[in-house]
Amino acid sequence: MTGCSGFVGYYFIRLLAEEWTGVDVLGIDFNQPNLDFDVSSIHFQYKRVNMMQQEEVAEILREYRPDYIIHLAAFSSVGLSWQSPVECFHNNTNIILYMLEAQRKLGLTSRLLSVGSSEEYGNVNKDQVPLREDHVLDPVSPYAVARVSQEILSKVYVGGYGLDIVMTRSFNHIGPRQKPVFVISSFAKQVAAMKLQGLTRGELTAGNTDIIRDFLDVRDVVRAYMLILLKGQKGEVYNVCSGEGHSLKQIIKMLGDSAGIEISINIDEKLIRPKDNMIIVGSNTKLCEEVEWKQDISIAESLEDILSFYYGC
Amino acid sequence: MTGCSGFVGYYFIRLLAEEWTGVDVLGIDFNQPNLDFDVSSIHFQYKRVNMMQQEEVAEILREYRPDYIIHLAAFSSVGLSWQSPVECFHNNTNIILYMLEAQRKLGLTSRLLSVGSSEEYGNVNKDQVPLREDHVLDPVSPYAVARVSQEILSKVYVGGYGLDIVMTRSFNHIGPRQKPVFVISSFAKQVAAMKLQGLTRGELTAGNTDIIRDFLDVRDVVRAYMLILLKGQKGEVYNVCSGEGHSLKQIIKMLGDSAGIEISINIDEKLIRPKDNMIIVGSNTKLCEEVEWKQDISIAESLEDILSFYYGC
Repeated sequence: MTGCSGFVGYYFIRLLAEEWTGVDVLGIDFNQPNLDFDVSSIHFQYKRVNMMQQEEVAEILREYRPDYIIHLAAFSSVGLSWQSPVECFHNNTNIILYMLEAQRKLGLTSRLLSVGSSEEYGNVNKDQVPLREDHVLDPVSPYAVARVSQEILSKVYVGGYGLDIVMTRSFNHIGPRQKPVFVISSFAKQVAAMKLQGLTRGELTAGNTDIIRDFLDVRDVVRAYMLILLKGQKGEVYNVCSGEGHSLKQIIKMLGDSAGIEISINIDEKLIRPKDNMIIVGSNTKLCEEVEWKQDISIAESLEDILSFYYGC
Repeated sequence: MTGCSGFVGYYFIRLLAEEWTGVDVLGIDFNQPNLDFDVSSIHFQYKRVNMMQQEEVAEILREYRPDYIIHLAAFSSVGLSWQSPVECFHNNTNIILYMLEAQRKLGLTSRLLSVGSSEEYGNVNKDQVPLREDHVLDPVSPYAVARVSQEILSKVYVGGYGLDIVMTRSFNHIGPRQKPVFVISSFAKQVAAMKLQGLTRGELTAGNTDIIRDFLDVRDVVRAYMLILLKGQKGEVYNVCSGEGHSLKQIIKMLGDSAGIEISINIDEKLIRPKDNMIIVGSNTKLCEEVEWKQDISIAESLEDILSFYYGC
């Protein structure tokens, strides 16, 4: 598992530790993961690998020869990609290229899960959602370009070299422990702080709150990834999403209601991104039908859990 | 001009030297260009730059601050991209990223010409040609992926950062001096060698000779690039092609007829590429209408000139 110390990595390792006892898991990342549960059932090991170094990537695959590769390592912020497009491109596209190339050269038959993004679809109209996997890709941010490049590279490694890769276009995920650089976590953190101060009214600073996204709890996301890895069809791409859209305004209202705080929104122009997509909502029909995934955690439950997490911080 | 020492660079410098006297031209590449004409009219200078080094790219743009950037540097062989996908990706996608990023950070308003490829379209059916620029992109080789990535990156730098970029999807180009790693040049070299030996019959080794491509003489290509640079619309992509398809079999026949040699074809399975596109023919309507380009050199003329070049070697 690459990117094992990130937000999704934490929950994926937890899922493996709970449901896949007996497997051997090697986690790689820049930093050691911060795990607060027992990982002895999966013989979890951690190794520091700089995935930007092609030789380091090849070396770890040569040594470990995994049956499955869960590739979570990524530069995953659309907002930050506008400030650091090169870093974003290197940390998404180049790293998967190094991995696929190592697999090819070593002749590994490992199945690899490549995580992409709903941002790949670009600007769409209200009447085009929910987006299906066959919708045209039209990336409008450096992050989206990096993800499209990752996906088309993966497809060539399947079609041209016969590698076994399954892919996702993952929509926004949320959940406890997500860094507050991500929008919902940032909102929840601010609302939780108000609650802890005993406020009943508060002001929240935000960018464009009319944008609509498809949010899915990270625990549902990792279950989807596991099912795609086990049952997905080689070379295929699966939307990972709830199928429902919520505006940031609605989310703020839900957080306020849950905390019992009346929130007013203060728009900060600096937080409005160039060329942001207005609406992104996916269809999860392919995911549900082909790998038998089903959403477990509603958005309301997820938001409650995120607030509870911040209440405890 | 990046990639100034390549096949297209040679002809572009010649065009500038003939028709753009008084301009200052800085050519950059790994190796000094081999120019056999007078370049004093364009104050041509050469500088060795390793475009894989982001800092070197930034430094040259900071020093020179060009009005126009003609970006020809590329890893441009589909065949070799299957053997060296990482090198291909770095030498197409990463280098343009470094250039665009330097322009953005320096606030340069230079207009940049980004050269892409007809390979971006991928496998198409006979009834879909000639391909127009709005045809869906479906890259099936590492080279094609690198070019699509280059194009979508360029579009984000136009749309998100306001850079002035014009793009091409260039179909196969041919002409004297093209390296024999490219198919037509390889055929012509073999036919010319037979002629020089005084043969009237000969055998030529080839891969799949049923594939159909749209070949355009390099001298028409560089005139198109110049017109796109001067008259093209910011953020737009232009097919650069003849609009006509010829199979490799037909080209071999034309070369043989021109040389007075009866050629039989020996198919070498090793030369057949995985997942090769069967037919690629473009529409040049946009190019002709928007920048007023017109083809000057027919394929027959072009093949004659290539043979003559090899007769003289």
